[in-house]
This record gives sequence, C-alpha cells and structure tokens, in this order.
Amino acid sequence: MTRWIAADWGTTALRLTLMEGETPLGTRESDDGMNRLTRDMFEPTLRRLAGDWLDGPARIVACGMVGARQGWIEAPYAPVPCSPPTDRAIRAPTGDPDLDVRIVPGLSQTNPHPDVMRGEETQIAGILRHRPEFDGTVCLPGTHTKWAHVSAGEIVSFRTVMTGEIFATLAGQSVLRHSLGGEGWSEAPFLDALSDAISRPETLTARLFELRAADLLLGQDTTTARSILSGLLIGAELAATKAWWLGREVVVTGSASTTPAYDAALRAQGLQPIVLPADAMTRAGLLAAREFS
Amino acid sequence: MTRWIAADWGTTALRLTLMEGETPLGTRESDDGMNRLTRDMFEPTLRRLAGDWLDGPARIVACGMVGARQGWIEAPYAPVPCSPPTDRAIRAPTGDPDLDVRIVPGLSQTNPHPDVMRGEETQIAGILRHRPEFDGTVCLPGTHTKWAHVSAGEIVSFRTVMTGEIFATLAGQSVLRHSLGGEGWSEAPFLDALSDAISRPETLTARLFELRAADLLLGQDTTTARSILSGLLIGAELAATKAWWLGREVVVTGSASTTPAYDAALRAQGLQPIVLPADAMTRAGLLAAREFS
Repeated sequence: MTRWIAADWGTTALRLTLMEGETPLGTRESDDGMNRLTRDMFEPTLRRLAGDWLDGPARIVACGMVGARQGWIEAPYAPVPCSPPTDRAIRAPTGDPDLDVRIVPGLSQTNPHPDVMRGEETQIAGILRHRPEFDGTVCLPGTHTKWAHVSAGEIVSFRTVMTGEIFATLAGQSVLRHSLGGEGWSEAPFLDALSDAISRPETLTARLFELRAADLLLGQDTTTARSILSGLLIGAELAATKAWWLGREVVVTGSASTTPAYDAALRAQGLQPIVLPADAMTRAGLLAAREFS
Repeated sequence: MTRWIAADWGTTALRLTLMEGETPLGTRESDDGMNRLTRDMFEPTLRRLAGDWLDGPARIVACGMVGARQGWIEAPYAPVPCSPPTDRAIRAPTGDPDLDVRIVPGLSQTNPHPDVMRGEETQIAGILRHRPEFDGTVCLPGTHTKWAHVSAGEIVSFRTVMTGEIFATLAGQSVLRHSLGGEGWSEAPFLDALSDAISRPETLTARLFELRAADLLLGQDTTTARSILSGLLIGAELAATKAWWLGREVVVTGSASTTPAYDAALRAQGLQPIVLPADAMTRAGLLAAREFS
C-alpha cells in the first residue's frame, strides 16, 4: 500500500488528506459538501480539489454524506449491531478506471428507536483501531452528536442528539441572537446551567427566553448568555443520555470547538473521559477501510 | 368616545382596527412590523396603512413592540405584580397635533427569573374586561407563549416559553425541514408525543432526530412528523409550566393556528380551558386603554 487519499466528505465540507500508508502528507479542504452537489458533480469536484494528487492511478477512500441517497452513490446503511462497516466500502462510478473511489457505508438502527449515522462509524472504526479492546461509550460531539455503545468490537446501539444544530439555530436565527453575539465561552455559568438542566430537565424550553430577558433587564453579557445556552443544551443532552455514560468508560471524539465543553460537562459528572482527536480517528478509520479495499 | 383606531403593532406585523366605541368597523393589516422600521418610519407607516381613517383629529391606541426601545418611543415596562398597565399608556411624538397616538407599556419581572412581555398585557386586560373576577392562569400561545398568574385583577407573575419559535426554527432551518414539510396536523401522534414529553421531559432533545431517521428508514409521513414535533415541544412546555396549570382555571387566548393544539393538550391533562379569541381580547384591552387616555 503506497499513496492513497482519505476523504471526509460531509454535508457542508470536503476534506482530503494525501496519505503515504498510515502517514498523512498534506490536507486540502473546500466547502463543496454533499448538500450543494448533484450526482454528476462529485467526480469533477474531487478532481478539482485533489489536483495533482490524481496524476496516475489513484485510490480514494471516503466516508460521510457522500454515500447518502443524494450523494455520489448510495452506500446502504449497515444495521447495528455490527462491527464498523469499514470492510464493506462500495465503489463509486467514475469516468476513468484509474480513479478508484470507495465509500464506507453508514449505520442504521430501528430499535429501540430509529436512528442513522454517516461518517461517525468511520471515527468509531478509528477509535477501535487505536483501542481494539475498548468497551464502553463513544461520544462524538458535532452538529448532531452521536452516542454509541461499543462492545467486543461491535457498535451495539447508538443515539443522535441534535444539540449542535439546536444551539446554532437558536443562537443564529431566533430572538436570542440579539443576546448571544460573539464567540466567547465562560466555564462557571456553563457549569451552573449544565447542572440545573441535568437535575431539572423539564425546565429547558422555559429557561431559554430568560437569556433575552436578562439582557434587556439586567444587561447580561453575551459571553455569559452563550455559555448558559451551551450548558442548558448539553445538560439536556446528558439528562437524555444518562444510561450511556453513567458508570461507563467514555471516549469523546469531536472537533476542537466542541470537545472541550463535552469534556468539562462529563468531568463535572465525575467521569474522566478519554479525548481522542476527530481528524486522526477519521483518518485511522479510513485507513482500516483502505486495507480492506 | 366616538371613532378611534386600535393598533396591534408587533415585531413582524401591524394590524389596525377602526372602532366606533366598542364596535369594530374594519381592519387593515400589513407586515410593517417593528423589526423593519427605524424610529422616524413609524408615523408615515401608520399614515400609509390607516389612510382615510386619519382624516381630521384621530386617536390611536397601540400595544406591542411599537413600545420597545427600538420602537416608536419606549414605553417603559411596568414591573409585576401590577394591574394591566392599560391605564399607563404613553403618548408617542407625532408631527401633527391632531394625530394622538398612545402606547400601552409592557410588563417586566425580575423574580423568580427575569422575563418581559409586550402586547400580551393588553390581551390580559381584555380578558379581565370580559371576566373581571377571573382568578387563575392565562395561557397566551404564540411565537413566545406567555403563562401568567392572574389574581384579584393583577398579573402576579409570568413566564415565557419559546415553543412557537423553536418549532419554526427546527421545522424551517434544521435538518428536520426535509421531513416536516406541509401544513397538516394529526391529533393521535400529537397526543402520544405530548404525553411522552410530559412524563419523560429529559428525552426531549434526543427524540428530535428520530423524526429524520423515521423518514429515512421507515418513510414516516410529514404530517405525522409535524404533529410529533408539536407534541414534543408543547409537552415540554407543559412539563415546565405544570405549577401554572395543574389544578387551576386556565384561559387560552391565541391565534386560530396555535390555540387548538394548546386546548387539546390541556384537555388531555384533564383540564377544561376557557378559549377566548386573541383578536377580540386585544381590542378589548386597547378599549380599556382608550377609556383611560
């Protein structure tokens, strides 16, 4: 196995990494996510971003929404419980036999509730490559945070919580946007709100407008308000997922912007989560798929 | 008291009703809400919509965001507990002494939590005009639903829950929009989701993504999904406001689009809410203010 390209191709972004075996040589990114591409645009989009990396025969291994029904080609969901489906990548149609593109399928679940993932299964494969004996819960924070039970090398079940997207829509689109500007984060109000939401989850939606009122009446600053909103929503998530983390070993694998809040939240519950970087886990999972294809 | 104009001037809309004493003669509406007007645009906007209603001396009584800091003139909040502040309307500056515009103040609260309202206090005044002896809870469903304790002619305290706006942002902006199109509503899945959210409010944010997954995996129809989302969010609201409605007499005053869901939700909890129409209650509250000004 020599050079190949690892592709993390999600809803809103494409990230390519040129690999020499297990070693990343360089990364190229664009915002050509699945949601702006029609089927016939995937191959030219890949060629444009990869450029000279595609001179001669090339092997690309991809994960994410590129394998959705609206993607390059549908890579049908693997139903849980199952091992990470990195051994079941399917080949995408290309106009050039020298361009070999494989797409890792996502996971589906029908019981105890319907759920799906695309992309995170590859991160779980990467985590298991680093820790083959891991038995516990994987928490993958993001726009849609995924919680997965992993045992004996299999994904047993999982649950999606839309915390990131709820935060973004409330902070960006609702009346709260006037009171939540900026980028700051403050741990004390975050932890207070987190604790309150875990112990009284029924108050969540009633507490949101307080952020607006506290700005109008008391001049509460926007960093405090953002931190409270984050604490309320992550607290609600931890209340909903208590069975997934209470008394378990937890790995947290997310971006640099989301992981610290989840790490702090779980530590406040007395856990000592293992934090592993998302980019490296995605590459490791794609490497596992590369070895099978 | 002869002719006058009742003005319901909110964030996104202006609604004028020509009144002969207590009798509405006609209504004119536009989408010239507060959020698209600068201070000097309020008078010309009123003149354009009212047209010939303003020939000769004219009296306008208004409520809503027109009295906010970003409105025509700030009508400072009246702090609760207090009677409806329809006896404390303030006069807006106009370029013509024959144009007499009065704005009813909103309400503020600092304990037990910060909260504000603008417009709903006038509806409460209208409710009390119809039922002067009412002692119980007023529920005013809308973009921001207000719950108010009313006793001995006073608003004792109140709480805002952003249910309508959360529904609109999730259904319109989030990934759920793909699974929630259309306008339909179905009572059975609404009541199931409502009951579930009231009894297990901690699962709220985790249940949202199920709506997407059930569409992808099971082809769940959009009307069912919309009804479930409405049931989950109103159920969360009822869980948060249980102290406001449990064992109390409740008046529900909202638009024709939001009131039936709240009426059904409260009936499912064993209540028999009194439903009073929002437009008529707003006019009755503005009439009370007219009599004082």
